[in-house]
Amino acid sequence: MRREVSLRHASRLVNHGPTVLVSTEHGGRRNVMAAAWSMPVEFTPPRIAVVVDKKTFTSELLQASGRFALSLPVPALADLAWRVGSESGRDGGDKFARHGIAAFAGPVLGLPLIEGCCAWLELRRIAEPHCESAYDTVFGEVVSALADDRVFANGRWSFREDNADMHTLHHLGGGAFAVPSRVVQGTLATGTG
Amino acid sequence: MRREVSLRHASRLVNHGPTVLVSTEHGGRRNVMAAAWSMPVEFTPPRIAVVVDKKTFTSELLQASGRFALSLPVPALADLAWRVGSESGRDGGDKFARHGIAAFAGPVLGLPLIEGCCAWLELRRIAEPHCESAYDTVFGEVVSALADDRVFANGRWSFREDNADMHTLHHLGGGAFAVPSRVVQGTLATGTG
Repeated sequence: MRREVSLRHASRLVNHGPTVLVSTEHGGRRNVMAAAWSMPVEFTPPRIAVVVDKKTFTSELLQASGRFALSLPVPALADLAWRVGSESGRDGGDKFARHGIAAFAGPVLGLPLIEGCCAWLELRRIAEPHCESAYDTVFGEVVSALADDRVFANGRWSFREDNADMHTLHHLGGGAFAVPSRVVQGTLATGTG
Repeated sequence: MRREVSLRHASRLVNHGPTVLVSTEHGGRRNVMAAAWSMPVEFTPPRIAVVVDKKTFTSELLQASGRFALSLPVPALADLAWRVGSESGRDGGDKFARHGIAAFAGPVLGLPLIEGCCAWLELRRIAEPHCESAYDTVFGEVVSALADDRVFANGRWSFREDNADMHTLHHLGGGAFAVPSRVVQGTLATGTG
């Protein structure tokens, strides 16, 4: 079930490097693309950097509206992630309609969040024209966070065999996605006395 | 076996969001820390952004030398990754000695790369004082890339059961690391005719 995630835990959602779907909306037009390149840059306030090519329709809507959303796709959405990352929404009409993508409205900004994902964030753009221009790197501050409590609860991911269909995707290139199905726990004790 | 990776494939090494060990060296002092937050920002030339807290010893050496390296730890190094991410190299002396970390010299810059990892990159800092100050975000251009050919060859990761000990780590928080042991392949064909 979809549940609100405390903003102090929002950076955790993308801490492990998942591919995200970036959705935007402005003036009655909307779009969605895939981005393999994002990372948190701050826990409090929760801030995230994401690379959005300035030539894309997503960038155009993001710049015009000052807001964007991230949805984290699961294995069943691998085809969708690869497709919306491989074509433009500027040509050929609304990608949501074209691919039958169901969306729901984000709780704070009302942005289109993608159904069937495992976590969602809404962000306000932090204007950094130089980084956007030089590195296609957009900074945003998270204003809402949601996650499916089958796989993220109490501020933590829990990747297990029984929820393997809710794990995140990590793009290796060429449409191949790694799924983080195994977890190892590091310890701080050195054992050297 | 360790092999050179073509610079045009260097961004692929961190495309899927692995935790990295950041190593630095300046004036006879060296350090290593873990960073969960990094991402490519460009394929050609290969450029990467990484978050390095400006209060850290790593940041001090990085700023002084204008160079840094990334090593990608494998499951057997989960303890080490968690430890070097949890303590400072400014106090208590050289972390390499303290933890018995073996290093070899990077091929272009001679930076200390961590033995037993699955991939390595050397980078020159691109001076972006505002991003470094506001977001602890350091941009670098990759000048050398290496990978173990048991898990990365011909420009691609190959995560399989028989090389599970060479997979990357993806920090979930609290020293728990996800390992991307399963791979799903997206397709572009829509099936809608």
